Formats: sequence, C-alpha cells, structure tokens
Amino acid sequence: MYRSHNCGELRASHINTEVTLSGWVQKSRNKGFIIWVDLRDRYGMTQLVFDEERTPKEMMKRAEDLGREFVVQVKGKVIERASKNPNMPTGDIEILVSELTILNKSKLPPFTIEDDTDGGEELRMKYRYLDIRRNPVRENLIFRHKVTQEVRNYLSQDGFIEVETPYLIKSTPEGARDFVVPSRMNAGQFYALPQSPQTFKQLLMVGGMDKYFQIVKCFRDEDLRADRQPEFTQIDCEMAFIDQEDILNTFEGLTRHLLKEVNGVEYEKFPRMLYDDAMRLYGNDKPDIRFGMAFGELNAVAQHKEFGVFNAAELVVGIAVPGGNSYTRKEIDKLIDWVRRPQVGALGMIYSRCNDDGSFKSSVDKFYDQDDLAKWAEVTGAKAGDLVCVLSGNANKVRAQLSALRMELAERLGLRDPKVFAPLWVMDFPLLEWDEDSERFHAMHHPFTSPKPGQLELLKTNPGDVKANAYDLVLNGNEIGGGSIRIHDKETQALMFEYLGFTPEEAEAQFGFLMDAFQYGAPPHGGLAFGLDRLVAILGGQETIRDFIAFPKNNNGRDVMIDAPAPIDDQQLTELSLKLNLKS
Amino acid sequence: MYRSHNCGELRASHINTEVTLSGWVQKSRNKGFIIWVDLRDRYGMTQLVFDEERTPKEMMKRAEDLGREFVVQVKGKVIERASKNPNMPTGDIEILVSELTILNKSKLPPFTIEDDTDGGEELRMKYRYLDIRRNPVRENLIFRHKVTQEVRNYLSQDGFIEVETPYLIKSTPEGARDFVVPSRMNAGQFYALPQSPQTFKQLLMVGGMDKYFQIVKCFRDEDLRADRQPEFTQIDCEMAFIDQEDILNTFEGLTRHLLKEVNGVEYEKFPRMLYDDAMRLYGNDKPDIRFGMAFGELNAVAQHKEFGVFNAAELVVGIAVPGGNSYTRKEIDKLIDWVRRPQVGALGMIYSRCNDDGSFKSSVDKFYDQDDLAKWAEVTGAKAGDLVCVLSGNANKVRAQLSALRMELAERLGLRDPKVFAPLWVMDFPLLEWDEDSERFHAMHHPFTSPKPGQLELLKTNPGDVKANAYDLVLNGNEIGGGSIRIHDKETQALMFEYLGFTPEEAEAQFGFLMDAFQYGAPPHGGLAFGLDRLVAILGGQETIRDFIAFPKNNNGRDVMIDAPAPIDDQQLTELSLKLNLKS
Repeated sequence: MYRSHNCGELRASHINTEVTLSGWVQKSRNKGFIIWVDLRDRYGMTQLVFDEERTPKEMMKRAEDLGREFVVQVKGKVIERASKNPNMPTGDIEILVSELTILNKSKLPPFTIEDDTDGGEELRMKYRYLDIRRNPVRENLIFRHKVTQEVRNYLSQDGFIEVETPYLIKSTPEGARDFVVPSRMNAGQFYALPQSPQTFKQLLMVGGMDKYFQIVKCFRDEDLRADRQPEFTQIDCEMAFIDQEDILNTFEGLTRHLLKEVNGVEYEKFPRMLYDDAMRLYGNDKPDIRFGMAFGELNAVAQHKEFGVFNAAELVVGIAVPGGNSYTRKEIDKLIDWVRRPQVGALGMIYSRCNDDGSFKSSVDKFYDQDDLAKWAEVTGAKAGDLVCVLSGNANKVRAQLSALRMELAERLGLRDPKVFAPLWVMDFPLLEWDEDSERFHAMHHPFTSPKPGQLELLKTNPGDVKANAYDLVLNGNEIGGGSIRIHDKETQALMFEYLGFTPEEAEAQFGFLMDAFQYGAPPHGGLAFGLDRLVAILGGQETIRDFIAFPKNNNGRDVMIDAPAPIDDQQLTELSLKLNLKS
Repeated sequence: MYRSHNCGELRASHINTEVTLSGWVQKSRNKGFIIWVDLRDRYGMTQLVFDEERTPKEMMKRAEDLGREFVVQVKGKVIERASKNPNMPTGDIEILVSELTILNKSKLPPFTIEDDTDGGEELRMKYRYLDIRRNPVRENLIFRHKVTQEVRNYLSQDGFIEVETPYLIKSTPEGARDFVVPSRMNAGQFYALPQSPQTFKQLLMVGGMDKYFQIVKCFRDEDLRADRQPEFTQIDCEMAFIDQEDILNTFEGLTRHLLKEVNGVEYEKFPRMLYDDAMRLYGNDKPDIRFGMAFGELNAVAQHKEFGVFNAAELVVGIAVPGGNSYTRKEIDKLIDWVRRPQVGALGMIYSRCNDDGSFKSSVDKFYDQDDLAKWAEVTGAKAGDLVCVLSGNANKVRAQLSALRMELAERLGLRDPKVFAPLWVMDFPLLEWDEDSERFHAMHHPFTSPKPGQLELLKTNPGDVKANAYDLVLNGNEIGGGSIRIHDKETQALMFEYLGFTPEEAEAQFGFLMDAFQYGAPPHGGLAFGLDRLVAILGGQETIRDFIAFPKNNNGRDVMIDAPAPIDDQQLTELSLKLNLKS
C-alpha cells in the first residue's frame, strides 16, 4: 500500500495519526538542523519535517539529497505545525517522518512546476507530462472531465441515448478535407475519418432512437490555425418529432445547466436574434453581446451631402465608443491605422467627438453641421463623452471591418470579461452561401439542412435569399453550437442536391444510402452539435482550446512530444503500397 | 409540437385527456366499420381507433390507406378500451382519433419490424436503420448506453478523471497492424490510429493525474474474424501509487457494481486463480467456471502400463462428463469425430464409462483393469453415471483440445447459462511468449508490463519462465479485461526492450519519449483495460458483439449499408499522392 491518505486531506483532526503518503517533492528548505519538504500529489500539498532531534542521522542525510520532482513515499506521524499556514488546506499540520523511501528519482525539470512557470509554450508542450503536473493545467483537464460528465448526466436524464457511430467510414468524392485511411482488406480502397457523424445520427433517427447524443472525436485534414486542431471533439445531438422550438429549449436547458453547475451562474431565458439582425446590428453572425456598441446605419442621415466617399458607399455605418471623446488626436490616428491594417482592410475611418457640452467635433466638419452630427449620435446611441466611429463601403466588407473594430475597442475597454457569460441564439441563417472560388452556391450549414417552410421554390429564382431552419448558439462572441432541422424526405433532399450542383448520379453515389433510408418512414428530425473544445475553453475562462487538451497538436499537426506524424520504413511502405494498390 | 405524450406512457388515469402522439404504424386491423392501428415509437405502442360512427368518412378512408411503417401524427381523446390487453402497458386505453396527419410514407419494409423478424442477417445489416426499430436491437443499444453511464459515474465518483488522448498518433516501426493516415501538412509522413492509448495513459500517470480513465475507440488493421471489429471500444484505466491488490479491488468493485446495477446480480469476492493453475485445471487462460469439469492429470495412473499411446504422451489428461454414461456408443463415436475435427485437432479420445453399479467399461479395457479405471474416476472426480474422456499428447496442444471438448460438452449439457455470471481473476501471466513465426519471444501483454519482483535477472537465463505483474478479468470464459503493473524506470524499460530484441536505437526511436518521461519522476503505476464490446455483450446475455453496435462492420470490414471503404476518384488520388510524396 503506497498511501493511507493523499497529500490534500490531512487536517488538525488527524494529529497523532500514523499515515503513509506518496507524492512528488515540490521543494525543500534545509536549515541544517531541520529540513522541510513540501510533498505534492493531484490532491494537494503536505509539509514533511525532518529534524536533528527526532530524525535518525542516516535519514536526515537522505532527506537532504531529495531533489525537485523526486517521487517519495513517507510514513510518519501527523503533528501540529509550529507556524501554521492558513493559505494551505493542510496548513495546520505537518508529518514527522519516520520512514522515507525514494520511489523514483528525477532529473532537474526543464521548467519550474509552479502555477506561474518559467517555461515557454514550446518547452511545456515538449514536456507535456511535466506541464500537466502544474495546478492550472491539471485543473483544466479536471474541468473538462466535469463538463463532459455534466453533459452526459443531463442528457441521459432527459432520455438521450449515447450511441457510438463508426470512425472508419466511407470516403466521399467531396471529401478533399477528409483524412483517408487505406484498407488492408480492400486493396486500393479507403476509409475516411468522419468530419462529423451527421449521416449516422440521421440514420439513428430513421431507426427510431428518438433522442441521440455522443461525445465524439471528429477529424478535418485542413491547414491548421492557432486554436484549431485536426482532431476535435463534438457533443453531437439529434432528436426526432421535434420542431426548432423543441431543440432550442432542450439545448438551452443543457447550457443553462452547465453555466449553473460548472460556473455557478444562473440564467433565465437566452435572447434570440435573427441572422439578418445580427449582421445588421453587429456585422457578425456570432455577436458578443456582453456589451452594447450596436451598429447604427447612417445612410439616411449621412448620404446626399457633399461628402463623396459616403455618397458612393453601399453602407455607411457607425458605432458609439463609450467615453471615446477622451482619446487624443494621436490615439484616434492610431485607431485609424488599426482599421487600415490588411487584417481589417478599411480604407479609412471618419469620427465625430461628442463633447460634454452637447456639441460635436468631427473629422468631416466641412461636410456635416452640428445637426447632422447630432443625428449620427442619435442613430448610434452615442452620449456626451462618447466617440462615434464611422466606416463606409461595400456592405458585407464594412460590416466585417466595423465588427472587428467593435471587438477591439471592447477588449481595450475591458468589456469582454471572461467571467461574464452572454449566451445568444442566432436563427434563420441563409441556406446557401456563395463560394467565390468555385463560383457556385454551397450549403452554409450542410446539404441536409431544410429550408424555411415555403421557401423551397425560391431556390430556383433567388437561391441567396432562402433562409434555413438553422440556428447557432453563441457564447461571448463564439459559436459554441450549431444545428438545423433536417430534410426528411427523399424528394426534397434530391432537389437540394440538384440545386447544389450535384448530378443525380453523384447524389446517389454519395448519399444514396441516406435517401433510401428516407423512403422507409423517416420522422421529422433535427439536432445540434456543440464544439466541446471551445465550449470548455469559454466556460473555463477564455483561455485557448489547447489549454484544455491533454496532448494537443501544434500548428504543424504534430504532438511536439511524440513528434507524430512520422515517416514510415520500407517494410511499412511495401505494406502500404499493397494497401493502396499503387506501384511505388 | 409533434406530441404531448409518447406511445408508451398513456394509462387509464389519462382517460378523457386530449393528446397528440407521433410514431410509426406497427400494424392495422380493418373490420370495415372499425379500424385499429398500433402506433409505435421508442417508448412503446398505443392503439388508435377509427370507427364509422365517430370518425369522419374522409379520415376513415385515409386511415384505411395507412401502410406499415408510415409516420403519422394523431390528435384525439384517450378512451377506455372495450377489450383490455393486460400484456401491454398501454393496454387499458386507446385513442379515438380526431386528427390524422401523415408525416411521411414508407415503402414496404424488406423485413418485418417485429421482435422475431423474417429478415436474415445480411438484409438486416443492409437496412440497419430498420433493424434498429426492432425492440431487441434498440434495447441492446440502450443497454450499452446504460453500461457506459454506470461505468463513467462509478469511476468518476471514485476520483477517476476521463481524459481524451489523441487519435492521430505517431506510427511506430512495429505497427504493421496499425491503420496509417497520410498527413497533408507533412508530405510523405503518416499518423497512425491508436491500437490503445497505452503510452498516453502512462504519460498521464507521469503527469500526476493519479487516476485516469477513458472510454475510447481503438483500431487494429487485422484480418477480421466473426465478432472482431477493426474499430473497437475500450474502457481504458490507469492508476498511480498502487500495487496489484489496489487495481484488482478497484476494478472488481466496478464489475460488481455493473453486475448489480445492470443485471441485478450481487457478488461478494471474485475468485482468483494463477495462470499456471488455469492452464493445468482448464487448459485455458480464461476458464469458464460457471461449471466444473476440471481437468484431472492422469500421467501417474495411466502411464507405464501396456498402452503405448499414453506412455509416449507428454500429458494424459481427462475430464468427467456428468451423466455421460448415458451416451450411446454411436454418440461417443460422434464425440470422438468431434475432437478429431481439424479445428480441435486431437488424434483420438479414450473414454471410460462409470456404471451405476460402480464398475467401469473403457475403450482400453485391454490395458487397464477396474482398479486403474477407478483411479481415473478419482482423479477426474467422476461419479457413477459419468463418462471420463481422456486425451493425450503434447501438453500445450492436448490442454487446448480438452478445453475445447470441455466447453462443447458444457454447452450441450446446458451448463453455460448466459444469465449466470462467473467472474474470475487470472493472475501471474508469463511475461513473454514464444512466437513460432519470428522465432523469438514477444511480450505477452505489452513491453511496458513489469516482471514479478526479483525475476528480472531470470530474463537472461530462462525468459519463458518469467512471470509478469499481469492479470486478466475473465467472465464466463471470456477475457473482459486485462492489465498489468507497468515498468516505471528507464533502466528496466531499456532492459526489457533489449530482451525483446530491440537495438538501443530502435527502442529510443520508438519509445524514447516514454523513457525520457520516466527520468522525470515517474510514479509506480498500473492499470487495466476492459473490452467494452465484449463486456456489454456478455452482460447483455451472450449475444454477439455486433448485436450491441449500431453500425457494425461485416467480415470484410465494410458497413454493409454504407459500403465503406470506397475507391477514391482521380482528384483524391492526386491529393493523396501529394500527401504520400509518391509518384503515382
């Protein structure tokens, strides 16, 4: 038996108990006649004491030699501490050690195992097993576990059944972003790893499972960006005999439960916003509504004057920056530089200061008088002391630019507090979006999403205007979940593939199995998938996704420590060539 | 709103309530003036009624046309049934339908959606979504969900943390059985899919996670056999600062909990058996101890007589078949044919009948007298009325043959009742096993398993005799879990790789990351992995693994329905060649 107690549980009530503890040496302080050692495990830290008077010389010597991160087992008596540490749960006691066993030595760790470590990110990733010993990382992993347990228990109690779907699935012709897996038993053929279990969960609905969920890994062979992993985890859900309202209520309930159980925050009803309104008011389909600064469209009040830039623009739109009138001219110039950076892409920015005395001072006073500027303030909701920032140009582009500015300013103003949670449903997404590269429409969500009732016919004439039974759950400016009511009959699904540019043969080859299934009594159904990685990161306080993954990959798709992927050797290459049916 | 209630919940107390139900048409009975329709969903079945008197003609007509598996929504009033059906939870009531909506039609299903269906296995796999509508299949999937929920809740309450480990990992040179995944971002290099998260969970122990578990998919690119899937699910567990006793107690506790919660069976302490004893007494490292028929070794009493076959044999061993004296000569001849089948491989079988009067009649009376045969009966535990069956030859082979015979006879005798559960720990497995093909020793469990204390040195001289800190949990003759105490220091691990025939360079290239980790304070640790698929199947009543998997693969590794894997097209092939860094 390696321990009778863990390093976090001994209290004053244990004094005089004989105990056995095991753990890592956090640090030791050697005063010559007395040595204190902090012993750490997952559960906490306990102080050990060795002293000249009570410890045999031989053990004193071994205690002196204990290095950081040595693994030791001690037996001893719990005694009262002379100087108590009220900041430590075990701070009332210490262990007078009677037996000391070194279970394993440790080389000097390459960075300190402290909450604030001196190790850089790459080093910590390379020695991830040491990084995990640090409280913040360990607590993140425990937090993730807690979130998934809460999700599973909540959904199970609500009648959802977790069903495992396959990881080795059929590769589809459109699957350029699929990871493919050569099959040894079927030379020249390939499995694909799923980007999501979408079609399988729909088949489960056809199969009458009624309420399905799964916490499941998904895979995308895309170029990596910061905070996007080639393998990611989804809370995947689907329900039958439901309409959109049922879905929103169910998963709002789940999210409310998580906010309460995991963050201790109670919410009543989540606000809802149409996609069109989100774009109009925030220039963004996942608006952060922890703060205001909604857009004010200024075309009516700022066009048809002498200012050619605004007159030529499709959209003139502004936001009020609270207290922004305090910015110096230099600060505003810097802000203009910021919006002109290539990442944002605005050509310039017009501003109007809202002075405390009710007057205005703008960068375009030549074209706009005080009445005009008062209207700008009114439309953007600016008050005395604020600054109105105005962008203009192509509507889509200028909305994206102003959204970026809004987020940046909110960040600077401290309005994006990770401890404040602002959930929001965004609804009625467009069914299709125009893809510049392929010059055709693509399904914005996926091709199984149903159009709003009565809009199917509109697909022929105005495909870009068709709205979908699709919704996203947004939390603090991040999409944490998204879903839709699905098509559940073969005719509509075939029509959808046709509108998306599939030939009937392509549609049949790729999704025939699903359309076949729809002919055998498919119930109305729909669902939602949460991105678990992001959900956990946001609930856990806005750190990056990687902080909550035990073994994340870097931007090259490599586990730094284990250095995957690896080249394969000749024997494997031969085997693989057989699998691939290729001559190498 | 598609329904106010589900099809399983209405009772006499609901009479006169207006309800809305949705579901599938199970069947309908049309008497002309009255039509009954059984409406089914996941939760049960409810009878609908339409009749000339109370139902409008137009609706009567539509009710007549309802086909099997049509999806319908009805509104109506709950009324008392004229002839109640006590076998149906909803048998006291029926719904007098006032509104009927056909939500979706169905083609005639290719097999009946009944508990006992007329569909063969292949057809049911092809239309798995219809198969899942059948009660037994649906209940199996719900049962699997229940088992995993119980596992997660039990382990979580015991302080285990579920941590996700990567699916895209480093391919290892020995990984001929790995599925490999070409990496787009690293041309010419490959990920592998994990055969188990073994090294990752050990790193988590080095990282101080203390108690880890994960219910996780694993992958093996092997030839498939009946009831083995290329992707399978494991309950993977690891603990630090534990010895073998802690592990056995922890997972015995989990298994006891499952038997109680899922099967309603209470167990005290699981019996334990040494590997050597299991082989000696049952010829098998996973003995089914629901019944006796233990082996009796007869060398001492059957050799050194005139019977050359026995004299030449390394082992002479028999079992007593309860009541086997009732077998006719013809039946015994058939049994001899059975053991001589190539799948069993015995050359013949000697038998001795134990007559009711205490006399014996054997197939080798020429060589053995009544006293000899009495000793056979004594050693094998045979009583009057039994039959002693004896095999002889090479010890390993004859044990396997007699084990097969023992299982077959137990099956015929009805001693393998799937509702009876007989768990058993088998301990002290050999560390190594001889591989005929490569003519060298392989790790029986895996190369991270520690040898029994003090046996490391024996590796040099008698490697086959070294026992490991390894244990299996056996249930009804199936290995449902296995594990070991791991090596946790670099020196021993390096030595182990050396004994297994790795060069130091190979060991370093393949497992250097783990041996590095061992140098930074690795705690003593060990664990166990359950095969979830088999565990669920056995707890669920000994059906095949496939019956508990929503979308199983057939023996060619294909989902029959979706027909994966698939050939890839030219564009994909080009992309893949780029990934592979191959000229195609």
